[in-house]
Amino acid sequence: MIHPTPPGTRDVLPEEMRELRALTDRLRSAFEVAGFGEVWTPALEYEEVLQTGDERAAGAPYRLFDEHGEVLALRSDMTIPIARVVATRYGEAQPPFRLCYFAHAYREARGAGVQREFLQGGIELIGVPGPAGEAEVVALVIAALADAGLDRHRVGIGDGSLYRTLLRQHDVAEEDQHAMLEALSRRDLVELARMVDRLGLPELLMRLPELRGGPEVLERADHKVGTLRELHGLLEARGVADRVIYDLGLVRELGYYTGAVFEVYDPAVGFALGGGGRYDELIGRFGQRALPACGIALDVQRVHIAQMAEERLR
Amino acid sequence: MIHPTPPGTRDVLPEEMRELRALTDRLRSAFEVAGFGEVWTPALEYEEVLQTGDERAAGAPYRLFDEHGEVLALRSDMTIPIARVVATRYGEAQPPFRLCYFAHAYREARGAGVQREFLQGGIELIGVPGPAGEAEVVALVIAALADAGLDRHRVGIGDGSLYRTLLRQHDVAEEDQHAMLEALSRRDLVELARMVDRLGLPELLMRLPELRGGPEVLERADHKVGTLRELHGLLEARGVADRVIYDLGLVRELGYYTGAVFEVYDPAVGFALGGGGRYDELIGRFGQRALPACGIALDVQRVHIAQMAEERLR
Repeated sequence: MIHPTPPGTRDVLPEEMRELRALTDRLRSAFEVAGFGEVWTPALEYEEVLQTGDERAAGAPYRLFDEHGEVLALRSDMTIPIARVVATRYGEAQPPFRLCYFAHAYREARGAGVQREFLQGGIELIGVPGPAGEAEVVALVIAALADAGLDRHRVGIGDGSLYRTLLRQHDVAEEDQHAMLEALSRRDLVELARMVDRLGLPELLMRLPELRGGPEVLERADHKVGTLRELHGLLEARGVADRVIYDLGLVRELGYYTGAVFEVYDPAVGFALGGGGRYDELIGRFGQRALPACGIALDVQRVHIAQMAEERLR
Repeated sequence: MIHPTPPGTRDVLPEEMRELRALTDRLRSAFEVAGFGEVWTPALEYEEVLQTGDERAAGAPYRLFDEHGEVLALRSDMTIPIARVVATRYGEAQPPFRLCYFAHAYREARGAGVQREFLQGGIELIGVPGPAGEAEVVALVIAALADAGLDRHRVGIGDGSLYRTLLRQHDVAEEDQHAMLEALSRRDLVELARMVDRLGLPELLMRLPELRGGPEVLERADHKVGTLRELHGLLEARGVADRVIYDLGLVRELGYYTGAVFEVYDPAVGFALGGGGRYDELIGRFGQRALPACGIALDVQRVHIAQMAEERLR
């Protein structure tokens, strides 16, 4: 008799669970000491609410009907539910709001070994605009991961609107924009080059994604990366600038990002540990008050794998 | 704009969340010190797996289809998933197994204010038969709640098979058995009396549910409660016999219980904080090895309310 769990889900036995608890305790403690209070939201939301946040956030993932025929869906991240919480429960309160979470999210990704139920731990900083907010979020995640025993981790920083703006400026058709951003998010530079060539676009659109490295990248970019330069200054002041990689081809799949985007790496493992960015328009979709916001979510099980990989390298 | 959460679900904001985390940390620590290792199982299971555990455990609750057309369902408790884990992951290992969990479960209960997503914290002791296993589980839950700051809590203990056996012995039709057990689980003694009368059953079937109190109840019961007497002796030896209420009308709604059943109370609040019992046939349904088992699940949010109510009474 074999009784499997659904694809992309798994059981966690005590030995691993103890390590995951220790890791989440470290991260939570770092977040709370910095003033980020933990919240919980239901695993199930009305699909309409998730779609208010981002059309692609709902839809394909796990959906079901409640007894009134309303469509419910398992959350695919915590950023949209927290935007709902801020708009509905903190509507009258004075920002900024500093919130954190540790909760499972659900995505219907395909492929062997791809997780569909994953434990996210993250922070949301709501009401602090521009580079000041981004610097606080990036520096806190770097510090929290250091507390958790990582010491080789890096945060990639890009501008989520930069490439999109360029494509619009060159009157690239909606459909082609989508295909190019998709190729970019997969880091498929061959496909990207093919499209730049076919559409007769300037070489800059090919060069930009190759600009990846230290602050010199920001100097070399002949386009408007002024806010990233400002962010770099703030990260220097916080003493974490050496942990950052600027990456002008970085784009994130979720559509609600409006500015800086982040990706967390560790050279000990070959996958991103998490990501996030600035989403200044999301809170306003749930209420009468628009609030600038940014955040980062970590995949706790991936951070755990990086933790173990770093230990082996020591 | 109002963006509600689905019925029976709620957001938890930082102040409450800190208290819930502190409470779960206390309970987990008590369980782990006693040798119960924490496990995690996916929130979604194949419905067939849940139904293998208990037909009523699946079905009505939240169900959906995966991309292969298989029916998935949100777990309605952790006991069935853990029975699956023990059968599939500990098939060759030497019992006993001591496991604990802190996870949300989902039930489609109706009524205003009735929770459908609730955080359960509990223990499962697998491989220790009879009163010895039950005494360990009951004593540990009493100690863990004391660690968490409760000092008026009680555990009700009944025999989940006693009333069922009597109904069978008196040849009560299946349908009437079901109705009587249902009335009993609602503590509807008026309806129960009506049925005892209508079916011409002996007065004992009416008197049994009224037997509730200290160990003298076990003396007064003119039926086979030998194992409960043995359990009482073991609870006396563990120094917790004074926290226990014997309740010969106690039945639990889930069908997998085979012997002693438990319910956790606190006089400061008017609802049960949790419950459980012995389920000696469940593990065997998932594998080749039958193992005796028992456990108790606490509703962590209800324990939190009892904690606060006790504080107000001090």
